[in-house]
Amino acid sequence: MSFGDRLAAQVADRESQIVLGLDPDPARLWPDAAGAVPASGSPAQLAAAAVAAHCAALIDAAGPACVATKPQLACFERLGAPGWAALQDTVAHARERGLLVVLDGKRGDIDVSAAAYAQALLGVTPTPFGDVEGLRGDAATVNPLLGRDSLAPFVEAARAHDAGLFVLVRTSNPGAADVQDLPVGDATVHERLAAIVGELGATGTSGIADVGAVAGATAPEHLARLRELMPAAPFLLPGIGAQGGRVEDLVAAFAPGRAGGLVSASRSIAKAHETHGGRPAEAARAEAERLRAAAWALS
Amino acid sequence: MSFGDRLAAQVADRESQIVLGLDPDPARLWPDAAGAVPASGSPAQLAAAAVAAHCAALIDAAGPACVATKPQLACFERLGAPGWAALQDTVAHARERGLLVVLDGKRGDIDVSAAAYAQALLGVTPTPFGDVEGLRGDAATVNPLLGRDSLAPFVEAARAHDAGLFVLVRTSNPGAADVQDLPVGDATVHERLAAIVGELGATGTSGIADVGAVAGATAPEHLARLRELMPAAPFLLPGIGAQGGRVEDLVAAFAPGRAGGLVSASRSIAKAHETHGGRPAEAARAEAERLRAAAWALS
Repeated sequence: MSFGDRLAAQVADRESQIVLGLDPDPARLWPDAAGAVPASGSPAQLAAAAVAAHCAALIDAAGPACVATKPQLACFERLGAPGWAALQDTVAHARERGLLVVLDGKRGDIDVSAAAYAQALLGVTPTPFGDVEGLRGDAATVNPLLGRDSLAPFVEAARAHDAGLFVLVRTSNPGAADVQDLPVGDATVHERLAAIVGELGATGTSGIADVGAVAGATAPEHLARLRELMPAAPFLLPGIGAQGGRVEDLVAAFAPGRAGGLVSASRSIAKAHETHGGRPAEAARAEAERLRAAAWALS
Repeated sequence: MSFGDRLAAQVADRESQIVLGLDPDPARLWPDAAGAVPASGSPAQLAAAAVAAHCAALIDAAGPACVATKPQLACFERLGAPGWAALQDTVAHARERGLLVVLDGKRGDIDVSAAAYAQALLGVTPTPFGDVEGLRGDAATVNPLLGRDSLAPFVEAARAHDAGLFVLVRTSNPGAADVQDLPVGDATVHERLAAIVGELGATGTSGIADVGAVAGATAPEHLARLRELMPAAPFLLPGIGAQGGRVEDLVAAFAPGRAGGLVSASRSIAKAHETHGGRPAEAARAEAERLRAAAWALS
């Protein structure tokens, strides 16, 4: 079953298009997490244990309203080897809770290096000592600046494992305009990227492709055009909440079906108690459920 | 002392502009490395130990002819937490041998995520359990697709630690043409990226900036124009050897001084014995020395 079909089935089953972003800052974890650490260890080991506990609690609280989680790899890498182990634990916990896992590392490199990233995130590395399992994400975010041949090893590995990709096309930050919006003839760089994504995706019976696009919810004026260029691509839509995007502006994303638009939210869920009061877990669950209902009603 | 000045001093001191790329494949290590593993462990632990031994042997053999090493992060990440520990060991070993370390991860993300990558690669992460040291590379490669505001946290962290950046401008692979060579008015995307890099760099007394560019040696026809747009940026020049680039074509890179062009080579050094015969360490040393002399004579 292709990633697109798996995604569509999972969205229908969970009645959710919400992707729970996990970008844990060890200095700003939920209070219970900082207490759930071993009695001794290096700062990296203790911080990684607290980060894993925080992510597990956030998944347990908000996960029932979500279809997937999206760990931000930078937040784990900065804790070194213990951080990478915490990332593996977090991926396993999300999967136990029935959530898809989108590994947000925005990797991009050439030939053998791209293939090595694909092994790390989606596949397996053969070695003389036995196969080394990668993180086995259901999907990963990738950066297309290096062109089609840099994406090919990711597409090949993803397809071999029924996984998917979300290619950066038009991101949610103001600086996206510096490069992605540059004019190229009658088009823009991000439209050219969208055309590449449209070519790469394979579509199964659900009408949803296995290669999607990251399209920031902060620039909804681009979404209709991006949908024309990528009729079947699932859109990963960051920028809701903390970055100012609104669910109501995303209707074009859902044209190929409910799984056509995945609404990613991180801080607005994890820090909902700071805005709305209450205990962190309950506030996170309520905010995720609010987003879920809003997106579902729209799609 | 800024990264540009440190780099210039190190190039002068070692009389070398060669950057030793480390992209270890656990299935293709030097024979001695595969034997230098613990008696037991998981496949990931054993493969990571072999990878660390291979990298140490390669650094010992070829390092004396080089100014820096460039570990390819993908090759370590695919071995999970033990791989990240092997990366830390490799960085430490390179530093003991007097080499600068350029972390080749081509990261790029927005605001807090970019700052987290910078903590992982160049800096330190404060946590309630104590500071967690990152890899503390002397420099890192970064991807500019997300624009100026995505580079700012990297520049800030690099400058705080006297480290540097190499921003992808025009890469060495054929697919670079797909996006980086797209025409934007009278310029190209890669010229627009070069202009951003030129703005970002700060130049100390050596005349070499702390923000450099990755400029593939496989497309030397672009180097003169890139040098106009980035007069002080150090160029990291991959693509020599296995990818077909020639040292002789790189003269424009050296305009601001000998540290203006860093010649990166990986497979042509690590696999020199396959081409030229002899033992791996001796063949690697000879090939690195050949490259060193060729670049030094040219600059």
